[in-house]
Amino acid sequence: MLEALRTAAGPGNLILDREALEKYASDETEDLVFWPAVAATPTTTAQVSALMRVAHAHNIPVTPRGAGTGLSGGALPVKGGLALSLEKMNRILEIDRANLMAVVEPGVITQVLQEAVEAEGLFYPPDPASRGSCMLGGNVAECAGGPRALKYGVTKDWILGLEAVLADGTVINTGGKLLKNVTGYNLTQLLVGSEGTLAVVTKIILKLIPYPPFRSTLVATFDSLEGAAVALTKIFEARIIPCATEFMESSAIQAAAKKRGRHFPGMEAPATLLIEVDGYDRDVVERDGQRTGEVCLAHGALDVIVADSPTQQKEMWDMRRAIGEAVKGLSIYKEEDTVVPRANLPKLMRALDDIKKRHGLTTICYGHAGDGNIHVNILKMQMSDRDWAEKLPPAIREIFTEVVKLGGTISGEHGIGFVQREWLPLAMTKDEIELMRRVKAAFDPKGLLNPSKLIPE
Amino acid sequence: MLEALRTAAGPGNLILDREALEKYASDETEDLVFWPAVAATPTTTAQVSALMRVAHAHNIPVTPRGAGTGLSGGALPVKGGLALSLEKMNRILEIDRANLMAVVEPGVITQVLQEAVEAEGLFYPPDPASRGSCMLGGNVAECAGGPRALKYGVTKDWILGLEAVLADGTVINTGGKLLKNVTGYNLTQLLVGSEGTLAVVTKIILKLIPYPPFRSTLVATFDSLEGAAVALTKIFEARIIPCATEFMESSAIQAAAKKRGRHFPGMEAPATLLIEVDGYDRDVVERDGQRTGEVCLAHGALDVIVADSPTQQKEMWDMRRAIGEAVKGLSIYKEEDTVVPRANLPKLMRALDDIKKRHGLTTICYGHAGDGNIHVNILKMQMSDRDWAEKLPPAIREIFTEVVKLGGTISGEHGIGFVQREWLPLAMTKDEIELMRRVKAAFDPKGLLNPSKLIPE
Repeated sequence: MLEALRTAAGPGNLILDREALEKYASDETEDLVFWPAVAATPTTTAQVSALMRVAHAHNIPVTPRGAGTGLSGGALPVKGGLALSLEKMNRILEIDRANLMAVVEPGVITQVLQEAVEAEGLFYPPDPASRGSCMLGGNVAECAGGPRALKYGVTKDWILGLEAVLADGTVINTGGKLLKNVTGYNLTQLLVGSEGTLAVVTKIILKLIPYPPFRSTLVATFDSLEGAAVALTKIFEARIIPCATEFMESSAIQAAAKKRGRHFPGMEAPATLLIEVDGYDRDVVERDGQRTGEVCLAHGALDVIVADSPTQQKEMWDMRRAIGEAVKGLSIYKEEDTVVPRANLPKLMRALDDIKKRHGLTTICYGHAGDGNIHVNILKMQMSDRDWAEKLPPAIREIFTEVVKLGGTISGEHGIGFVQREWLPLAMTKDEIELMRRVKAAFDPKGLLNPSKLIPE
Repeated sequence: MLEALRTAAGPGNLILDREALEKYASDETEDLVFWPAVAATPTTTAQVSALMRVAHAHNIPVTPRGAGTGLSGGALPVKGGLALSLEKMNRILEIDRANLMAVVEPGVITQVLQEAVEAEGLFYPPDPASRGSCMLGGNVAECAGGPRALKYGVTKDWILGLEAVLADGTVINTGGKLLKNVTGYNLTQLLVGSEGTLAVVTKIILKLIPYPPFRSTLVATFDSLEGAAVALTKIFEARIIPCATEFMESSAIQAAAKKRGRHFPGMEAPATLLIEVDGYDRDVVERDGQRTGEVCLAHGALDVIVADSPTQQKEMWDMRRAIGEAVKGLSIYKEEDTVVPRANLPKLMRALDDIKKRHGLTTICYGHAGDGNIHVNILKMQMSDRDWAEKLPPAIREIFTEVVKLGGTISGEHGIGFVQREWLPLAMTKDEIELMRRVKAAFDPKGLLNPSKLIPE
């Protein structure tokens, strides 16, 4: 069997050495570690197909992975078997200016593609926080989001076609370089966000747009998220659609400020919004930035700072981007990726406040207010291991129950993967989960592709 | 069985009378007629579910339908059985200004929703040609497109969630009022465009944006489509993304002019583009309209006419909108909904020209150039029935073969339905079709929902 895998993988593409295997045993999800028996790093679709055929014949579980930056354990080889890394399939095959599209392999790092298309005056908007290290194949598998989703959508909105390998090694193509396509079921969109449980993506056709060269960035502070949420609604009513509306609790900014050893604007206020407007016309972008600030001030903002230089814009984003790591550095933590209809954010924040107080937990919240997508970081801090183990699960259940009651769901952009799947029955009915199980079986009857993910046991 | 159906449908919602059944025996696809045994017009999801349960228990084929404006036979009850019309479920349940979303039943006419949201300053962009009569449930089933797809996307890009009834009567919900959602497979997007073969949609959550109040409309004439295609590319390079780039052959405009009994701009030139730019800023829209015209003139346009009043804009659109019916009124016809990567449009047009000449056929082409989506109308004209029956199938095969060779596919926005499904093997491999069959079986193991559609026998 190993010989068959070695032949299938191609020369130098099979890894058995324990030290070399270590990087395939974890991703960025908490401190979880699951060792694969073997890893493969194929360089062609034919090799991926050959590997899947061998795995299929020998009933070997296969866990596809990109850069391993996921936050829901999607890349963890929970059942051992073969870790199938697409890292070497990292070529940008084409930047097609006439059609405004790109064709890439799954191992291309998101930011590498973005910089390559920007050099041609083009734009690929999805910008997950990990864009400097995550890979487009993983973005497709997880349907990665990010701050720009409000205006530009998430990964799925930019994927026009895929080449993928099924569990039995069959290579399929879905979609194409086509802006309109109703030929057959939309398997492209079914595969996006399927977390590597239905097929292994080996090629991606992406949509691009002209690069919007102008941006106006501002920070607005509020005495509560309710205030910030009202201002957001008023911004939309003024027919401005920002490309980012990032929400941060003061504790989030303070953690970032401490980590960076500096002061950040907005760090004293209970709630802060970082808002950015972008576009193709300098005057309009500047005017919309000004108007956005005015709307905030007219609707309860304590203060508004409009960045007056690219340096200041960069500082504002540096603050936002420092938060994730800073918060996670404070303590052992558990992050929940809640999402609700935008207008229900204030209700969610009040409910979270209540839940954390009742359970004696520390939380820090930040995220994408315009999308209703708030990352709730629950911090262990000084709590005993026993208390943490006892208090956390019921608190999470209460949070998710509240989220669903507010019309939301349990993951906006991080995925279900391994760590959230047992919570899925809070968000979906038995019938819906059963239907997903049948869809999974239609693609992978033996259940070998990324087992123990997305669907509860 | 009839009694069970009658009870399930609800009072007054079951139709057996042959005269009343007639409207459920056809749609707008050529002159095809298939009679259902019975039709139902339920008013609630519970009634739809009850009907599906009865049909499932008695193995009755069910063909869901909206307004019957489809062009691929999706609403034809090919196997008889029950025609399930959603026409009475026609309420706009909510226009949610805070979240910029709407919740509607499937029987709402597209234009009715558009006008309702426009009255609130909001915008639902998808605009299939039949928007005055087609229903949103049908738009979802077919993933309807239209001229604005280039800038705003097609129906799928505006659908955030669905309530749907499975073949056995199970009611499921997918998605929600959420801009980000990675909880489970994207069943919403699998259902959009599934042509009523996977489930019956009973509720739709749509995304809205602020209404763009300004538009600039122009007509540019060219001596060939190649010229028009080059100009289009230059428009994108100038960072202008028009909301429509409609292509018309001179014969298409002449048919429209004859029907309307008037002269239209561009009717003497071999190729005409109707281009529209829209947006939130009057100056930018006006300037982009002017720049678009200048780019066209700098890249081969014979003439450019920028509409100087809403009346003239309306006239230009009247020309475009008159074409479909005018062309179809000329003769018995067969319409193919070809789509290729935009940059390959000139090659497609040359190939079409060659094919029609070799087969001695008359064609008139028009469509959405920016999307690479061209409707090829093949006209019988004076050809004998025998010649028509003999020449048409090999010509269609050649057209579709060429389309696929150019990276395109056999339907951009009309769907596969009943009339295109036997051509599907030209566009998809056996493995891909087999996979779709398994997906269909995951939803509808008995094969009762809209049988004889989308997947070849």
